[in-house]
Amino acid sequence: MKNFPVVKSRRLRSTPYTDRIESQGVSSYTVYNHMLLPATFKSIEADYEHLKKYVQVWDVAAERQVEISGKDSAKLVQLMTCRDLSKSKVGKCYYAPLIDDEGLLVNDPIINKLAEDKWWLSIADADVIFFAKGLAAGNKFEVKITEPNVNILAVQGPLSDDLMSKIFGEEIRQLKFFNFKYFEFKKKKYFIARSGWSKQGGFEIYVEDNLAGQDLYDYLFEYGTEFNVRPGCPNLIERIESALLSYGNDFDNRDNPLEANFDKFMNLESEANFLGKEKLKKIKQEGVKRKLMGVKIDHNKIDMYCEKTLFDDNNNIVGFVRSATYSPTFKQIIGIAMINKPYWDCKDQFRIEIDEKIFVGTICGLPFV
Amino acid sequence: MKNFPVVKSRRLRSTPYTDRIESQGVSSYTVYNHMLLPATFKSIEADYEHLKKYVQVWDVAAERQVEISGKDSAKLVQLMTCRDLSKSKVGKCYYAPLIDDEGLLVNDPIINKLAEDKWWLSIADADVIFFAKGLAAGNKFEVKITEPNVNILAVQGPLSDDLMSKIFGEEIRQLKFFNFKYFEFKKKKYFIARSGWSKQGGFEIYVEDNLAGQDLYDYLFEYGTEFNVRPGCPNLIERIESALLSYGNDFDNRDNPLEANFDKFMNLESEANFLGKEKLKKIKQEGVKRKLMGVKIDHNKIDMYCEKTLFDDNNNIVGFVRSATYSPTFKQIIGIAMINKPYWDCKDQFRIEIDEKIFVGTICGLPFV
Repeated sequence: MKNFPVVKSRRLRSTPYTDRIESQGVSSYTVYNHMLLPATFKSIEADYEHLKKYVQVWDVAAERQVEISGKDSAKLVQLMTCRDLSKSKVGKCYYAPLIDDEGLLVNDPIINKLAEDKWWLSIADADVIFFAKGLAAGNKFEVKITEPNVNILAVQGPLSDDLMSKIFGEEIRQLKFFNFKYFEFKKKKYFIARSGWSKQGGFEIYVEDNLAGQDLYDYLFEYGTEFNVRPGCPNLIERIESALLSYGNDFDNRDNPLEANFDKFMNLESEANFLGKEKLKKIKQEGVKRKLMGVKIDHNKIDMYCEKTLFDDNNNIVGFVRSATYSPTFKQIIGIAMINKPYWDCKDQFRIEIDEKIFVGTICGLPFV
Repeated sequence: MKNFPVVKSRRLRSTPYTDRIESQGVSSYTVYNHMLLPATFKSIEADYEHLKKYVQVWDVAAERQVEISGKDSAKLVQLMTCRDLSKSKVGKCYYAPLIDDEGLLVNDPIINKLAEDKWWLSIADADVIFFAKGLAAGNKFEVKITEPNVNILAVQGPLSDDLMSKIFGEEIRQLKFFNFKYFEFKKKKYFIARSGWSKQGGFEIYVEDNLAGQDLYDYLFEYGTEFNVRPGCPNLIERIESALLSYGNDFDNRDNPLEANFDKFMNLESEANFLGKEKLKKIKQEGVKRKLMGVKIDHNKIDMYCEKTLFDDNNNIVGFVRSATYSPTFKQIIGIAMINKPYWDCKDQFRIEIDEKIFVGTICGLPFV
C-alpha cells in the first residue's frame, strides 16, 4: 500500500499540540472528527512495544466533545443511547452506544456526567453534534448544544500512574477507572479521567485552556524522562489485540448494537426512553444473523483500506474482516470481522486473499486469547 | 509546511476509482465525508492551468448523498434549509444552505429533487445524515434516510461538453445549468447534472453502479485523448479565484448564512417552514457584525492549516483569513476571510504574518475582480 500525503487545511483542523508532535517526529496522520490525529511516530511496531512497557503522551484532541446542557439535557442524552442512565452519577464516565430510530449505531462515545444538567459526549469519528441538534429541535427540548474548546491529552502505558502522580500528586493514583475529577498543577485545574483508548492503563486530561495544555504537555515530557516517556497515539496493534472497537472501522450506521456485541451496554427492559427501543427489542427477540468476532490468519502482513471478504471452501461468504494487523504477541495476523451466523463456531476456517495470494484463517471469540 | 502521509483504513473510505487515480499519479489526498478525496495530481498550479484550458475527470465520490424519501420527505428537506423549496421541480438542482435551530450553518449541499417524495442532498464535509435522522425522529416524520451507493465522477473544464457529447450524444449539450437527466451509454443509464465544484463548466455524473462507473471512467480517458483529458480534482486556486465556498474552511457551524453571503438563498418572507427562521429574521433585522469578503496580499506563498488573524495599524483585529492561495491570475495571494464590520470598506488595509514576516493586504469584495 503506497502512502500519500494529506493536504492540511482549516477544514482538517490542527490541534494545540500539532507543532509539538511534529517537532517530536510524528510520521503519519489519520483524520478524525475533521481533525488531525497522529497515527505513528517511530513505527506502529516500535510505538506498540514502547506503549506496553513505559508511558506515552497522546495528542487525542480529535476526540471531540459534544456538550449538552440545560433543563432537558438528561432527557436528550438518554434519548440517544440504549444504556440506562437513570442512575448515572456526576463524576463518572459511561461507555454508551448511540442509536438512531432504526436501532442502528450512530457512535460509541464515553459520556461524562459533569452535573445533573451538563454532559460531555466524548465522541468517535462522526458529527454527533448534528444528531443531537436535530433531536433537540424536533422534540423542542430546552438544551444548549456546543462543541467546547476541549483538547484531550492522554497519558497511557503501565507507568502512567508514576508520571501523573509526580505532577498531580499521589491522590491521583486513587482515581478509579471511568471516574473523573479536577486536579491541580501550577495553579491550573485539569479535568482528568482514568480512561483511554488502550488497555495499558492511564488517564485522559480534558484540557480546556490551550496555553495551560501546551505547558502541561511540556511538563509531562520534562517530568517523564525517568519513565522513558515518549509521544504516542492510539496504536493499531494494541487496540486490535485489546479488541477496542473503532466506529467507522469495525462497525458503523449499518450495524446494530447486538451485532457489535454491545449487549451489556443495552437496557431494553429499563424504563429509559430512547430511540429505536422497540426495534431493538424485536432484533433481540429474532436474534442477529451476524456479529463481530475475531479472526486469526497465519501470515505476517496485511494492509486494510476497505473490508476484505472471507470465503468458505464452497465460495460462500463467511463474513468481512474490517480491521486487521500483524500481532507481535500472537505472531500472526489478528482482525475484527463481521461473521455470518452459520460460521460462529470457533472451529470454523475461511479463505482470504491478501496481496493476490490466498491464505487460510480461523474464527475466534473476542477478546483474543 | 511539511507533508505527512495519511494512513488508510476502512474508516477513511476509498472510492471505486481509487485504484485508477493512484495508477494515474494522484499525489496527495484530503479527507472529506470520511472518504479519500484527491487534492493534487501534478501540482496545484499545473492542475489549475490544465483545468482552465482542457477537460478533467474528477473522483469526487466524497461528495456523498443523503437520500430522503417517503411521505414527509419534502417537509423534512424544507425544515433543514432557509431556501424556499415550495416551487422546486423534479430534475433540478438547488444550492441550499442548511441551518440549525440557532440559525447557524450546518452544510451547503446541492439538493437534487428526484421525485416529489425523493431527494438527494449532495453534501459538503459533515454528517448531514445524522441531522436529518435526528429531525425526522424528533418530528415523527414518515421518511427513509439513507446514504445510497452513489460515487460521483465530475467532468470539468472548457472542453467538458465536447467530451461528454462524444460519449452521451449531442443532446447533452442542451442540458441546462443545475438541471439533471438520465443519459445512456453502452446500455447503462447515468444520472448526469450540469454542475460541479469549479467555474470552468462541466458535469457531475452520479454513478449508482460501481462497475458501470469504472467502465465509464476508462471510456472518459479513451474518448478524451483528443481533448487532452487528465485526471483532476477540486483545485484550491481555481475554487478560491471563483469564490466557491468550502464548508469547514470558509464557514462552519459557528457562522450564520448572512455572514456567509447566502442572502439570495434565504427566503425569510416565504411561507416555508424551516429551522431558525425567527432567529434569522432577528439577525437580519439587527444586521451582521462580520461577513465573508475577499483579501489580496502582495506575496507569492501562503500555507493555510488554521485561520490567520488580520490586524489594523493599532493591532485591532480586522478579521480572519480562512482559505488562501497564490493566484497566477491575480499574481498575488488571494483569500476568503471573515471581516469585522468596521473594515468592510474595500479600501481598508490590514497586516498579516506569513512565515514570521509581516505583509500588508487589502480587503475586497467577492467574487474577485
